[in-house]
Amino acid sequence: MSRSVAANAELALLLEVASTPKPGNVDRHREYPALRFEQFLAGAVGTRSGFASAAAGEPVGRAIERAVAGMSDQDGGNTQFGAVLAIAPLAAAAGRSDTTLSPDGVSVVVAETTVEDTVGFYRAFDHVDVAVGDPPEELAALDVRRGSEAVSAVRERGLALAELLAESADVDDIAREWTRGFPRTFCAAEEIAGREGPVTDRAAAVFLELLADRLDTFVITKHGRETASEVRRRARAALNGTEDVDALAAELVDRGINPGTTADLVAAALFVALQRGTSP
Amino acid sequence: MSRSVAANAELALLLEVASTPKPGNVDRHREYPALRFEQFLAGAVGTRSGFASAAAGEPVGRAIERAVAGMSDQDGGNTQFGAVLAIAPLAAAAGRSDTTLSPDGVSVVVAETTVEDTVGFYRAFDHVDVAVGDPPEELAALDVRRGSEAVSAVRERGLALAELLAESADVDDIAREWTRGFPRTFCAAEEIAGREGPVTDRAAAVFLELLADRLDTFVITKHGRETASEVRRRARAALNGTEDVDALAAELVDRGINPGTTADLVAAALFVALQRGTSP
Repeated sequence: MSRSVAANAELALLLEVASTPKPGNVDRHREYPALRFEQFLAGAVGTRSGFASAAAGEPVGRAIERAVAGMSDQDGGNTQFGAVLAIAPLAAAAGRSDTTLSPDGVSVVVAETTVEDTVGFYRAFDHVDVAVGDPPEELAALDVRRGSEAVSAVRERGLALAELLAESADVDDIAREWTRGFPRTFCAAEEIAGREGPVTDRAAAVFLELLADRLDTFVITKHGRETASEVRRRARAALNGTEDVDALAAELVDRGINPGTTADLVAAALFVALQRGTSP
Repeated sequence: MSRSVAANAELALLLEVASTPKPGNVDRHREYPALRFEQFLAGAVGTRSGFASAAAGEPVGRAIERAVAGMSDQDGGNTQFGAVLAIAPLAAAAGRSDTTLSPDGVSVVVAETTVEDTVGFYRAFDHVDVAVGDPPEELAALDVRRGSEAVSAVRERGLALAELLAESADVDDIAREWTRGFPRTFCAAEEIAGREGPVTDRAAAVFLELLADRLDTFVITKHGRETASEVRRRARAALNGTEDVDALAAELVDRGINPGTTADLVAAALFVALQRGTSP
């Protein structure tokens, strides 16, 4: 008996949201009034059939749309869009018989994406509001938030999903993972797998280290670079023990600053660790 | 888009364990060193394919075994056996085209069980250690803890699963639900569905009311009737506001007293509420 790829992908989302403390993000001890812990549970449950599609070798874009549609079947709105985007190609690499769950394997999946995957990715935005930056004016027709209304413009432009995400690699660290073979994801998975203790404690520790390492691109998008820099500086202080991590977690939730990209990376890393034998 | 019967069954287990405070039981704020919150998450994820079997009309006993086998794929041991036993016939009633999710519908499912369902139920015990009372000496060959080793004795005796559980209806409140058309489950589902606020807060409130209503049969089995009476009395005090519910929750966890039957009933009630449209 062992969990399927799709079950591990879902479980990764559940373990991520259960991990605490993760300053600024929803976890088992902290939530926002309109974005609650239970909505992340329902969101995770809803993703499974989409991840099963990816693992079965169906087009990644369609799998992402299916996972996001299922994720949205709760009242909190966007709970795990970024994590779905990060995990879907990893689930494909793990599930396909011609690839392995490795930087090379996921790079094959990414390289094989087509414009139809881009269409699926856009359609995913029909199901949920996602906080993203405005595109340049000349690309307004291609704003992802237009969802399926942008499909003809997307087809006309003709970019594969990998090409589209490569354009955002400088401003979105999930897109950066896609473009580079998921280096931070695999590295964080090694960290989670190699430590002792409850998996959710290990994941929370790795979250803090990732947050101290690079600016969270979701915080940059929502609050600007100065706030993102403050978050990184204070995560470093929490790591060094000069700042209390629980107090920091409470303060960031109060201020509505949630480092979502870092949480998405931890979810993806948890998926890799689960696939490689880490067990709750 | 809406969740499948099996996804709602899994989500019910997740919402149950997330609901807090539930004095004595694992919840998002309390756990035992060897029985942790994350293990309930993995346990819930593992049940889904078994619930899908039940919803597809496969024999309930086999569905229970499949759900328990999947549930056991984590290091905490028995997390949700009783909840699986409670939800499986409800999932069958909800999924089958000839029954509805109602006291009458689940009673049809229960009445149709055969000795092969009893065999599946016994086989479920191969996957996990469950705390149950000792059988009378003349029935030692039929001790459920023997699992599949008892199968020939089970077939010889020839009891359908409904008949077997009817024999335990006086000492196990999940067996009692099976025998009576799940009256407390449907009543608790109405309570959860009819209230306001986060679903996990409603479930925790209903848990306390159920705990104040009847002795928890899992506590009786593990700790005796006196302890179960104390738990009920103090749950009533918590309801009346003469005892602090969080302090009670901490104390019962310290003493290792977990009212598991009441948690199983809440999980079953959450499943019914989700099927009827309650949404996180």
